[in-house]
Amino acid sequence: MSTTEPFDAVDVIVAKRDGHRLTDAQIDWVVDAYTRGVVADEQMSSLAMAILLNGMDRAEIARWTAAMIASGERLDFSSLSRPTSDKHSTGGVGDKITLPLAPLVAVFDVAVPQLSGRGLGHTGGTLDKLESIPGWRAALSNDETMRQLEEVGAVICQAGSGLAPADRKLYALRDVTGTVEAIPLIASSIMSKKIAEGTGSLVLDVKVGSGAFMKDEARARELAQTMVELGTDAGVTTVALLTDMSTPLGLTAGNALEVRESVEVLAGGGPADVVELTVALAREMLVAAGRPDADPAAALADGRAMDVWKRMIAAQGGDPDATLPVARETEQVVAETDGVVASVDAYAVGIAAWRLGAGRARKEDPVQAGAGVELHVRPGDTVRAGQPLLTLHTDTPERFGRAREALDGGLVVAPAGTVVPERRLVLDRVEA
Amino acid sequence: MSTTEPFDAVDVIVAKRDGHRLTDAQIDWVVDAYTRGVVADEQMSSLAMAILLNGMDRAEIARWTAAMIASGERLDFSSLSRPTSDKHSTGGVGDKITLPLAPLVAVFDVAVPQLSGRGLGHTGGTLDKLESIPGWRAALSNDETMRQLEEVGAVICQAGSGLAPADRKLYALRDVTGTVEAIPLIASSIMSKKIAEGTGSLVLDVKVGSGAFMKDEARARELAQTMVELGTDAGVTTVALLTDMSTPLGLTAGNALEVRESVEVLAGGGPADVVELTVALAREMLVAAGRPDADPAAALADGRAMDVWKRMIAAQGGDPDATLPVARETEQVVAETDGVVASVDAYAVGIAAWRLGAGRARKEDPVQAGAGVELHVRPGDTVRAGQPLLTLHTDTPERFGRAREALDGGLVVAPAGTVVPERRLVLDRVEA
Repeated sequence: MSTTEPFDAVDVIVAKRDGHRLTDAQIDWVVDAYTRGVVADEQMSSLAMAILLNGMDRAEIARWTAAMIASGERLDFSSLSRPTSDKHSTGGVGDKITLPLAPLVAVFDVAVPQLSGRGLGHTGGTLDKLESIPGWRAALSNDETMRQLEEVGAVICQAGSGLAPADRKLYALRDVTGTVEAIPLIASSIMSKKIAEGTGSLVLDVKVGSGAFMKDEARARELAQTMVELGTDAGVTTVALLTDMSTPLGLTAGNALEVRESVEVLAGGGPADVVELTVALAREMLVAAGRPDADPAAALADGRAMDVWKRMIAAQGGDPDATLPVARETEQVVAETDGVVASVDAYAVGIAAWRLGAGRARKEDPVQAGAGVELHVRPGDTVRAGQPLLTLHTDTPERFGRAREALDGGLVVAPAGTVVPERRLVLDRVEA
Repeated sequence: MSTTEPFDAVDVIVAKRDGHRLTDAQIDWVVDAYTRGVVADEQMSSLAMAILLNGMDRAEIARWTAAMIASGERLDFSSLSRPTSDKHSTGGVGDKITLPLAPLVAVFDVAVPQLSGRGLGHTGGTLDKLESIPGWRAALSNDETMRQLEEVGAVICQAGSGLAPADRKLYALRDVTGTVEAIPLIASSIMSKKIAEGTGSLVLDVKVGSGAFMKDEARARELAQTMVELGTDAGVTTVALLTDMSTPLGLTAGNALEVRESVEVLAGGGPADVVELTVALAREMLVAAGRPDADPAAALADGRAMDVWKRMIAAQGGDPDATLPVARETEQVVAETDGVVASVDAYAVGIAAWRLGAGRARKEDPVQAGAGVELHVRPGDTVRAGQPLLTLHTDTPERFGRAREALDGGLVVAPAGTVVPERRLVLDRVEA
């Protein structure tokens, strides 16, 4: 290591290992030096494990986030004629909320810059879903993003590689070193990109349950609280909802399948839970952006949100009226007995959709536009033996077997008369 | 990662991270896969940090040690006509004990195979010291080692690269990732080599104090206990002494300087503390090897140990009667006031010797044979202003300045009449 470096990586690791606070200068250096390659992967992974096990306090997390932001460029939406508001979800199964939500909020003269990602593992990616629309493209230049925000009001596109490059490098490392689950690192990863993106307000949808990253509510609340504090400290109006992810959102998990369902919601229909969460998040975004009197439910019902959707898709080269791809093969899963649906496990459905081809195992893998799982029942529904519970969709029928394995035990039919408790979709609200 | 691997590295890391025991199969796999390069450095460093912070139980440490042994070859001394006994020190300043100890124990028909290392940082290395003897060579084949043990009874040589290669790779990684201080990993690193080496009995000299790796007695005792358990479980008669390393051993820290002092001890003289510890460790080794009636103090006094020393050095090409190298330049540090020496800090002296050229900053660096620190006083001695306290030796006089900086505050002269408590050299004894 060059003698011009102000710190030694081992000293920084040892400080956190031994339970000390990292100083601002240590944090600034270690994030920057890691980005430059002076701190090696094996040093950063050891530090990440020490952070995971010993934690960081609010000031450390804020500084870490600032250092990640400083590793790249910042966008600036202040020249826009309207306020900006963004939403981030920690990821779930069937979570297509961004699709109806962005155009819905834009109806009320709020600019919605949704810089999104692709799916990895059992949770789908917003860009993968939209790419099932013929012609639609995810990559926009910063100028194109600004112009679309001014002209259409909503944009869903790929985050540029210039935002928080330290985060991209660190995220890939955490993924292979058992250090993904560190709340300070999760929070700073998400918030560094959102703050660098330059949004004026932010609503966080923190998922809880089997299909979510956070399986238990206490940890989800801690993550939400940490992110709200980070956003607030950085001058971004930030609020979080804790929402249920024990059961998939809506009746589909897959790419084109979820676009179709989102269009149903934009047409004033669609599954009740998707509508409920879309409207709840829209209200939060609109309040945060200074539009407390807006009525998002009305804008779904009367077609205004659909108008923005069509313009948003068209602006990125997509044909909003084109026929969506369908999978070459389908197979049904049917009820073995009469009874009542006691549970539909989000994780099982997510893994099944992934195995059918809707998701990818490695970053470079392609996804199938038509693949996924379609639910015909929800918890609480009465079913008869032989009735279809799910339809599996794929272009590669050899995958049906492993998808069925994933679903084994994931959809429970209880004896008739069993009382299934009603789902609480929004579990809590966290604000600064 | 190939699908033929029975585990995924992330699962093993996560298990330890979340406070679980690692299974035997997980340990066997992760050590072997790391040696093969299937588990990457950034994964092993993350696991090492999790082990450091969450610990391993006795059975896990034993299995980890066995897996490291299994990564390489094992030596076998059972064909020798006498029992074997070895000593390992955790490293300190002025710790030349191996030099008089090995020939002293061999006097009593016990074979002493001292497979030793080089110095890194402020603690010196036994091989570096012996290499200041003209002609002496550290590298022996296994056959040469066996022959010398049979004919001379003592050998101090470089450990072959075939012993516990997993340890060598892991040690280099821990050194740069802040994970050196994990007691399970320290213990398994030391004991894997000692057990693979095939010694019948082993005496551990676990240092405590500023110049030692373990600064406090509780952690030193924990390390000693862990190593004694590991040795015992592997069928090696093992005992440990906890010994003081707050003050350097003897009056010299450096390579040729320490050889000279060792020869004084072998000639029946030398500093009292070096003689005391040499005899104490020799007694432990002789008891462990079945020679409870041997009188090592007598064998120092009557020249028998010196005879073995000369044959041992000659057997490895060295000239035991050659003039030892001296440094080109010396400088004295003198007392500023009258008073009594309250303390001589081992760490300060070790760093000064290192900076003068006796040690190395990186593994590839050479060392200076003549460099080091010579003490003229010990704690409790009365001194007058202007009286020499230390002599600094180096071939590169531009280093005097940084050596003096290291000594600043390391040698305290208190007002005349101050009572300095007597040093306890052997603090405790740990057996199975």
